[in-house]
Amino acid sequence: MDSSFDLSSWSQAHLARVESALSSLIPLSAPAGLAPSMRYAVLDGGKRLRPLLVLGAREAVAAGETSHAQEDHAESLDEAALRAACAVELIHAYSLVHDDMPCMDNDVLRRGKPTVHVQFGEALALLAGDTLQALAFEILTPLASELGATKTPAPALQARLCQLLARASGHAGMAGGQAIDLASVGLPLTETELRHMHRLKTGALLQASVRMGAACGQATTQALSALDRYGEAIGLAFQVVDDVLDVIADSATLGKTAGKDAAQDKPTYVSLMGLERSRQLAAELLAQALAALDDSGLAQTHALRALAHMVVDRSH
Amino acid sequence: MDSSFDLSSWSQAHLARVESALSSLIPLSAPAGLAPSMRYAVLDGGKRLRPLLVLGAREAVAAGETSHAQEDHAESLDEAALRAACAVELIHAYSLVHDDMPCMDNDVLRRGKPTVHVQFGEALALLAGDTLQALAFEILTPLASELGATKTPAPALQARLCQLLARASGHAGMAGGQAIDLASVGLPLTETELRHMHRLKTGALLQASVRMGAACGQATTQALSALDRYGEAIGLAFQVVDDVLDVIADSATLGKTAGKDAAQDKPTYVSLMGLERSRQLAAELLAQALAALDDSGLAQTHALRALAHMVVDRSH
Repeated sequence: MDSSFDLSSWSQAHLARVESALSSLIPLSAPAGLAPSMRYAVLDGGKRLRPLLVLGAREAVAAGETSHAQEDHAESLDEAALRAACAVELIHAYSLVHDDMPCMDNDVLRRGKPTVHVQFGEALALLAGDTLQALAFEILTPLASELGATKTPAPALQARLCQLLARASGHAGMAGGQAIDLASVGLPLTETELRHMHRLKTGALLQASVRMGAACGQATTQALSALDRYGEAIGLAFQVVDDVLDVIADSATLGKTAGKDAAQDKPTYVSLMGLERSRQLAAELLAQALAALDDSGLAQTHALRALAHMVVDRSH
Repeated sequence: MDSSFDLSSWSQAHLARVESALSSLIPLSAPAGLAPSMRYAVLDGGKRLRPLLVLGAREAVAAGETSHAQEDHAESLDEAALRAACAVELIHAYSLVHDDMPCMDNDVLRRGKPTVHVQFGEALALLAGDTLQALAFEILTPLASELGATKTPAPALQARLCQLLARASGHAGMAGGQAIDLASVGLPLTETELRHMHRLKTGALLQASVRMGAACGQATTQALSALDRYGEAIGLAFQVVDDVLDVIADSATLGKTAGKDAAQDKPTYVSLMGLERSRQLAAELLAQALAALDDSGLAQTHALRALAHMVVDRSH
């Protein structure tokens, strides 16, 4: 890791922008309890890993934009990346709201707070989740009349961001992985099957975060392909570490119920290959992610590099 | 109504395209029960009013495309309209799946069949609905490499269609209306409040159907504004007639549980203004819709005209 790069202050600066954007993009006055439940589900919580990956990838591909014309264009690209960061977080948040519901994981604690259905009732939790998903695509396609011409992302970029997000969150991504997860409780999975499930369930959206950030700029095919490998490695590493933490951390540290996987007899990397081999796999995936950045030919990858370390070294 | 126009054969031809497109766009092999539950929720059922409105509006604005260059372009516009027709139906279908769930309306019968959660369980119903929403945005943003250059809709049109659909289905549209509906059971609403609820809950998506079809072509500001008024009138008329049918029709004709609104003490146009005044309101809204088409300056409005009559004169 680049010892001169301070992830903490980088994250702080970017998260301030993300939190502020989320707070202004999620309505304050949606009908009948919808606004409070949506805001509760998204604001003041979470590591915001996905938004940081979007902004880290945008930073990596933005390094070359120096001419005046490019600087003008940069404003709309920065806006697109910020909106992409928020949109991917809204998708993540909606998935947590629905996952926690009684008919799914039936969980009562999330980010140290009662889950949305506990706080607002099941009907509003269902609706809030649905609405957060729609909002993600709404903020990716702003009207020029709302945003002003210089800030409005090019329509082709808007379409591309919707394309990446929809595919990563649907049947071939997050939701597909959820369905496998649901069907796998109590079943013995092979490592290949487990990897496939997690590639869809959490990997697709993490990888899409990197792709969406990279779409907000000009990058070579080589760079894009390297960023894809980075995103894939990070996505898998994230889940492996999640499984490890579920075993070794307590609920207070996690902010959610610990030891749930084993209690629910869910297949995990730890149950499949043991704690030590799981930790070793996480370290290998980190090395792959860093090697991909080396191959990218991009100069400004400090943030992505530090985020990869953070994913693997985190305690919650 | 134009007596020379045969809605039945027009609908049949267009519905064959929609059904075929839906069947090929909804995956056959999504993981772990997701594909069958998604297909069950969408295929072989429903009046497909929203897709027909999209295609009727596309036809109205397409009438002027005659030059060779425009004809070339027409292929991608027709493809965009077909995809928009399918996307809006996917959003409608997902909303029905979630509405029918025990924590919402708790209904067991839809289109004459067991509802999705009865057939597949609540967890899969929740996931299938979520996935159908994502799929709607996925099919609006096809990759040129999947579809071929001449058929692929222009990126700006893709973005515009996502924009219209996301806004109509989210907090300021369908989902917002649902939240009001949920909060209004047993409460006395004024006609203004009831109208506001329905404008969001069903009106927004019906109006968006017309807008999405109209976006797939070149239309004057005057024509677009007239089509908007048409869509709004049709949207309200649809709900008024729904309320009337809930009182006068039986479950077999409706394909869903009749008399539910009264049983659940839900405010309706009939409970608010009585049966006769409700029927009169529907007739007034039909007249407004037809007058808007007269104002549009568009020549090819036969289908939209006939669809307006169908909305008001239907028996289910």
